[in-house]
Amino acid sequence: LTWSVCTRRVINVDKSEFNEDQAACCQISVRRRESSLEEDQEWLILCSTQFLTAYYWALFDGHGGPEAAIIASNYLHYCIKQKLEEVAGAIVEAQPPMHLSGRCVCDSDPQFVEEKHIHAEDVVVGALENAFQECDEVIGQEMEATSQTGGCTALAALYLQGKLYVANAGDSRAILVLKDTVVPMSCEFTPETERQRLQHLAFLFPKLLDGEFTRFEFPRRLKGDDVGQKVLYRDYFMEGWGYKLVEKADLKYPLVHGHGKQARLLGTLAVSRGFGDHQLKVIDTNIEVKPFLSCIPKVNVFDFALHDIQEDDVLIMATDGLWDVLCNKEVAHMVRSFLAENRTDPHRFSELAKCLVCRARGKKRGHQWMLDDSHEASYDDISVFVIPLHNRVEDC
Amino acid sequence: LTWSVCTRRVINVDKSEFNEDQAACCQISVRRRESSLEEDQEWLILCSTQFLTAYYWALFDGHGGPEAAIIASNYLHYCIKQKLEEVAGAIVEAQPPMHLSGRCVCDSDPQFVEEKHIHAEDVVVGALENAFQECDEVIGQEMEATSQTGGCTALAALYLQGKLYVANAGDSRAILVLKDTVVPMSCEFTPETERQRLQHLAFLFPKLLDGEFTRFEFPRRLKGDDVGQKVLYRDYFMEGWGYKLVEKADLKYPLVHGHGKQARLLGTLAVSRGFGDHQLKVIDTNIEVKPFLSCIPKVNVFDFALHDIQEDDVLIMATDGLWDVLCNKEVAHMVRSFLAENRTDPHRFSELAKCLVCRARGKKRGHQWMLDDSHEASYDDISVFVIPLHNRVEDC
Repeated sequence: LTWSVCTRRVINVDKSEFNEDQAACCQISVRRRESSLEEDQEWLILCSTQFLTAYYWALFDGHGGPEAAIIASNYLHYCIKQKLEEVAGAIVEAQPPMHLSGRCVCDSDPQFVEEKHIHAEDVVVGALENAFQECDEVIGQEMEATSQTGGCTALAALYLQGKLYVANAGDSRAILVLKDTVVPMSCEFTPETERQRLQHLAFLFPKLLDGEFTRFEFPRRLKGDDVGQKVLYRDYFMEGWGYKLVEKADLKYPLVHGHGKQARLLGTLAVSRGFGDHQLKVIDTNIEVKPFLSCIPKVNVFDFALHDIQEDDVLIMATDGLWDVLCNKEVAHMVRSFLAENRTDPHRFSELAKCLVCRARGKKRGHQWMLDDSHEASYDDISVFVIPLHNRVEDC
Repeated sequence: LTWSVCTRRVINVDKSEFNEDQAACCQISVRRRESSLEEDQEWLILCSTQFLTAYYWALFDGHGGPEAAIIASNYLHYCIKQKLEEVAGAIVEAQPPMHLSGRCVCDSDPQFVEEKHIHAEDVVVGALENAFQECDEVIGQEMEATSQTGGCTALAALYLQGKLYVANAGDSRAILVLKDTVVPMSCEFTPETERQRLQHLAFLFPKLLDGEFTRFEFPRRLKGDDVGQKVLYRDYFMEGWGYKLVEKADLKYPLVHGHGKQARLLGTLAVSRGFGDHQLKVIDTNIEVKPFLSCIPKVNVFDFALHDIQEDDVLIMATDGLWDVLCNKEVAHMVRSFLAENRTDPHRFSELAKCLVCRARGKKRGHQWMLDDSHEASYDDISVFVIPLHNRVEDC
């Protein structure tokens, strides 16, 4: 009763001193407590115990040390198991009941659930959202107790009752490579993609910037010469750009600064969601970074019942080390051609993961690591899961 | 040099006492001030004056009286003109300059604009965002000065330099009905669609609820019987649903309550964006609604250069009175068949607007207004713009 094949490769090849990526992969048995409340007694009687089986894969990309990623890889599946068990009575129903005990105090309750279009799937999504929050709290406690620092991103995939849930907080990415199409299963949370949320927080609570940063975005860092001129800028409410008369205060370092891989939150972090960083302060200041970070994932759901899954269809999960140098289309092309060429190899999925990692790592030419197409290779840690979807356990 | 045809119909047919919808439609001449700063002198010299021509259509759906909608219909185009003029030097360039004066103090500036992918279009979007904010301030002042109350939604379309910009704050809607496709040009902002933003604000500033409301969402209003039970709920960070042990405080009226057309913010408003309502308080309390409202529009852009516009292609703008009873698909079907059947009628676009309004108004059967398909007709005010796209002025 295990998933047919799943494989992961991590390569660090001396590019950085320590590998900060972590991975986890396991089966999660969700216990269903069929409980009944005895009349006149205030204790629960366990009538029977049944299990729902879920499958779980996760990648964590650490920063400021591997500790947060290590704790996350040891705890997140446990938090998910716990949160799923809390709602296990609801997720086996097509429509979750208004009351978890199943004791409806109002006959018309199902009508309201129906009106709000609440399905079992929504309760699984809620459990994942709560599990991420719980896991961040656990990491905060563990790191404080052991005087460790740092944080990590989190990308988790869960297969449960015929559906794939991908929860993402950070800049890792998951895509489904199917026969005729590529389905993105996550989007990245970085200081650039979350600029408006971050600026809005700084607008609501200016003290968070302690007079050291400006919340405005400019195309480049302003200089003394710019004061008194009108330059391009964006505030929290703007998707477009405007012009602003530059004042001295605008010369401060911007809350969100830089472009692409160089974008930073408070000049410190390249991601805006993830776990940890509870103690992180901007260097040489008392400014805390944590208030700007979110540990809440965006969850995307893929329903296998609505798709005809083919033999070579796979879920690819990888840290930014892969996606920095390969786009979805390139990865999909490599996946399809590799699997077509190696149809009889029983290890072809793990070989594919290795192949993707090696491609992103590149080859050493002199002092540089280069891709096949002569672009610079990835200097980051690279972790890849290749998860075949065809022979999945149907009845779990 | 005017737009070929544009037409609008408003019908109120005694369903409500006053029609609270307002509309506006005009040409906006954006003055380009070519200015130069004389050395050693602190005043500007106007060297030459050129004009950019824009076309503007807007719908405002008032609540709590028609006053805010009337002011908005008189002022928004002026605010847009003003904000466009402030950046006129930038929007005629393919890439807006870092400095509005055009005096780059740094040779590498264009590089940063390029790196951030800033285009003239983004500066127009920024001008619209700022114009909406300015208009809301004007309305606040006007309403206070004349002791009037109320608010309104705002949906504005602007055609400028080959592109159509649709800015929306509220629950009106604009769609492009093209030969083979329907392009949604706006999305609705209601207490339901903005639940997470509203709940997050209440989480950050609990005082805004003054102990009278709960920020949690439940499928229905909770009752005394629910206390001590676990019921379905959502908090600000959840797209999914969880279960919460009900406490007494959860029996308070929810910040966002009801479903679909019945959804209300603070039990008071059916929309979460728009103008006005500066003085609005929840009935019998000191709780202000304005902090939860946003006047910032979401702007969608349609580039005519990328599409082959056909003779019957139109932009449909309408208040919720239309969309409550007709979906995009039904409207698109009516648009296409009506225009195909009336190809020679010079007034066919205005006739189509009338036809759409009449369809949504329905027919009186006894005491009820019914649609052709025997569903209930719209009881709200109904305003519709039909704007043909084919014979637009190319050179403005």
